[in-house]
Amino acid sequence: MRVIDGGITAVRGVKASGVHSGLRQEGRKDLALIVIEGEPATCVAAFTVNQVKGAHIIVSEKKLKRSGGRLQAIVCNSENANCLTGERGVRDAEMMAEFVAEKLGVEADLVIPMSTGVMGKFLEMEKIKKGIDKAFDRLSFNGGCEAAEAITTTDTHKKEIAFEVELEDGSIVRVGGMAKGAGMIGPSLVIPHATMFAIIGTDAKINVKTLKLYASKAIDETFNMVAVDGDMSPNDTVIVFSTGKVGSKSGEGVSESQVFQEALTKVMRGLVKMIAKDGEGATKYVEVRIEEAESKEDAKKAALAVIKSPLVKCAIFGCDPNWGRVISAIGATGIKISVKKLSLWISSKTGEEVKLLENGRPVAVIGSNQAEKARQVLYEDEIIFRAVLGTGTEKATAYGCDMSYDYVKINAEYTT
Amino acid sequence: MRVIDGGITAVRGVKASGVHSGLRQEGRKDLALIVIEGEPATCVAAFTVNQVKGAHIIVSEKKLKRSGGRLQAIVCNSENANCLTGERGVRDAEMMAEFVAEKLGVEADLVIPMSTGVMGKFLEMEKIKKGIDKAFDRLSFNGGCEAAEAITTTDTHKKEIAFEVELEDGSIVRVGGMAKGAGMIGPSLVIPHATMFAIIGTDAKINVKTLKLYASKAIDETFNMVAVDGDMSPNDTVIVFSTGKVGSKSGEGVSESQVFQEALTKVMRGLVKMIAKDGEGATKYVEVRIEEAESKEDAKKAALAVIKSPLVKCAIFGCDPNWGRVISAIGATGIKISVKKLSLWISSKTGEEVKLLENGRPVAVIGSNQAEKARQVLYEDEIIFRAVLGTGTEKATAYGCDMSYDYVKINAEYTT
Repeated sequence: MRVIDGGITAVRGVKASGVHSGLRQEGRKDLALIVIEGEPATCVAAFTVNQVKGAHIIVSEKKLKRSGGRLQAIVCNSENANCLTGERGVRDAEMMAEFVAEKLGVEADLVIPMSTGVMGKFLEMEKIKKGIDKAFDRLSFNGGCEAAEAITTTDTHKKEIAFEVELEDGSIVRVGGMAKGAGMIGPSLVIPHATMFAIIGTDAKINVKTLKLYASKAIDETFNMVAVDGDMSPNDTVIVFSTGKVGSKSGEGVSESQVFQEALTKVMRGLVKMIAKDGEGATKYVEVRIEEAESKEDAKKAALAVIKSPLVKCAIFGCDPNWGRVISAIGATGIKISVKKLSLWISSKTGEEVKLLENGRPVAVIGSNQAEKARQVLYEDEIIFRAVLGTGTEKATAYGCDMSYDYVKINAEYTT
Repeated sequence: MRVIDGGITAVRGVKASGVHSGLRQEGRKDLALIVIEGEPATCVAAFTVNQVKGAHIIVSEKKLKRSGGRLQAIVCNSENANCLTGERGVRDAEMMAEFVAEKLGVEADLVIPMSTGVMGKFLEMEKIKKGIDKAFDRLSFNGGCEAAEAITTTDTHKKEIAFEVELEDGSIVRVGGMAKGAGMIGPSLVIPHATMFAIIGTDAKINVKTLKLYASKAIDETFNMVAVDGDMSPNDTVIVFSTGKVGSKSGEGVSESQVFQEALTKVMRGLVKMIAKDGEGATKYVEVRIEEAESKEDAKKAALAVIKSPLVKCAIFGCDPNWGRVISAIGATGIKISVKKLSLWISSKTGEEVKLLENGRPVAVIGSNQAEKARQVLYEDEIIFRAVLGTGTEKATAYGCDMSYDYVKINAEYTT
């Protein structure tokens, strides 16, 4: 498996572009277009479980059902979420897809619209239409980069990644993707799993049913395990498609490939780590690893509870070794724990682990030298907490960041 | 019903004091003592449902069981939570109660210890012992005020309240209380209900079983409906006691008194509002009222989801009329809603309501004059959101505050 350039356009058969349509005042790109060359791709999507749904989700769910999971293009705007916009919003989302379908000469159900940004505001369709025209003019096989840029909102930089990998049967395929998300990041934990905005493609030939299996498994360990503030967005969308440009050696689609599953998960994990590191106002990247839980579900709940705790996040920002907050957050989840079996460590990316709690007894007593050692770890920019529950054999990892003054600043001034 | 002075010592038969034991460096009071004169009071307690429990909870649960709900004294320290301190911590909590029991010449099970402050640190028992001696010297029938001061941690001021009320049978009783809490405030929603630290007394004669009914009902609408950061503490404790100094006219204890229930709820709501207003870093008090929910439980879930949302809290701090975040938080709860029936208003304590969303259609479209009107409301220091779900007849109110830079500052520097 090797990293390659190109993001989503590293995938054979994918063209993309990103332009400034005018939704954003300051001239930053705000509209992305992704087009599959030739035959439509197979496609699966995971949307938010928030009962308040952005108009594009209401529209896209129906499209994918009608098309049987086929995809020719994705058109995506930032700056305006087209959410809480009633029936007018739904018509606008449909129209956005129709503009693209018309240009391509394909049925409208093959085009998925996506919107992200502020809620409670109608889309300016004139600007969208002009933006789509511009985006078609710029479409290219190496436009992934500018498409990734165009979907960002409070992100400080674009997020894209791609790998080339040799499957078990010798075929060489590519998996690439792009994502956006810095705030309003909180996972759903209910099928269909989905958080934030991500578009991932592969050129490996895979049918819809198999693609769904691969995607569900990968999303569950990645996009459902990242949290910046724990607020679940009404617009969260993850699209996974296969252009099928590289057939498997057998001629059948790729199925039961451990290598492909790993590659897909790795692309998603890469994007998730970028989202966590770029969390609104983040100064530190944080990983929470839960081990020896009774069930997978317990391990996930505990990891997410710690990664989402405002008190834990503030303590990390302040390099304050107040590790009791980590344990308290686990205790508050309601999962099965025995405090007498609980142990906790902290480490940075490079250094040794520092023990904080052992079988329920405090090791890094506040004010002690050991607590001082923990503080030294907190000065690093990548922090890992590892908690061993001692009630079973399951584990899970959650991804997130600290909470700084800038998180408050960014979210206090979002629409203005 | 009329407001009276004295806090917890407004209740006949209650002496209290607050002293500086030396746990805190800066000379602020850190140890409170409450003593019931004469016969022990009847007493019920609600503790956190966090599975990680402060040592005082492990000890007090057993005491109350053994004593059959009788109480002679409460001793309470701040600055150190005596939590995650293993068996040594449990022994220290027992010893703290024994010091007091010895001085009073009563059995140790009649004394409840309480601790709040930082976790993962052993209690300095020498200081506790000296502090208790000092507290006994200062005990008085108007010491409620200094006791309330001594239990505060990150609170900016003490919290106490008392009412005198005439019951249905003509007897005149008092209900008074004190509380602490500014951060790590998040309700449990599971019986036994409990969040934060509160001690509430009445001189009305009430047996334990009846007191439990009154207390549960009142706690459910108040302490279980307040959130500053939504982090559930391992030390949350609410104690409700009756000194029985004022018998009911019938000679029996007070039972089925609507007036008493209202008075108790009013005391608790008063304390809860003080906690919300004094939330760590709070610049604004916030109330979220949910109406026309299908069930009481749904209404509570929705109200708490909004009051806890970091995005909503930051928007309020920034006076940003980004009301979509309120609706999104409700949608993420999983309770039954129909977006087409949802309506939302905002108002200040004094002014008129401003409509934001009506039956799923945006009224205060971002950028419109109506949104500007909403922003004007947000400049006030008490903000009320009212959401009508349109799926039933139940309602609930949650209490909280905004999230400012100071919330982060306070929690980034707590142990240091």
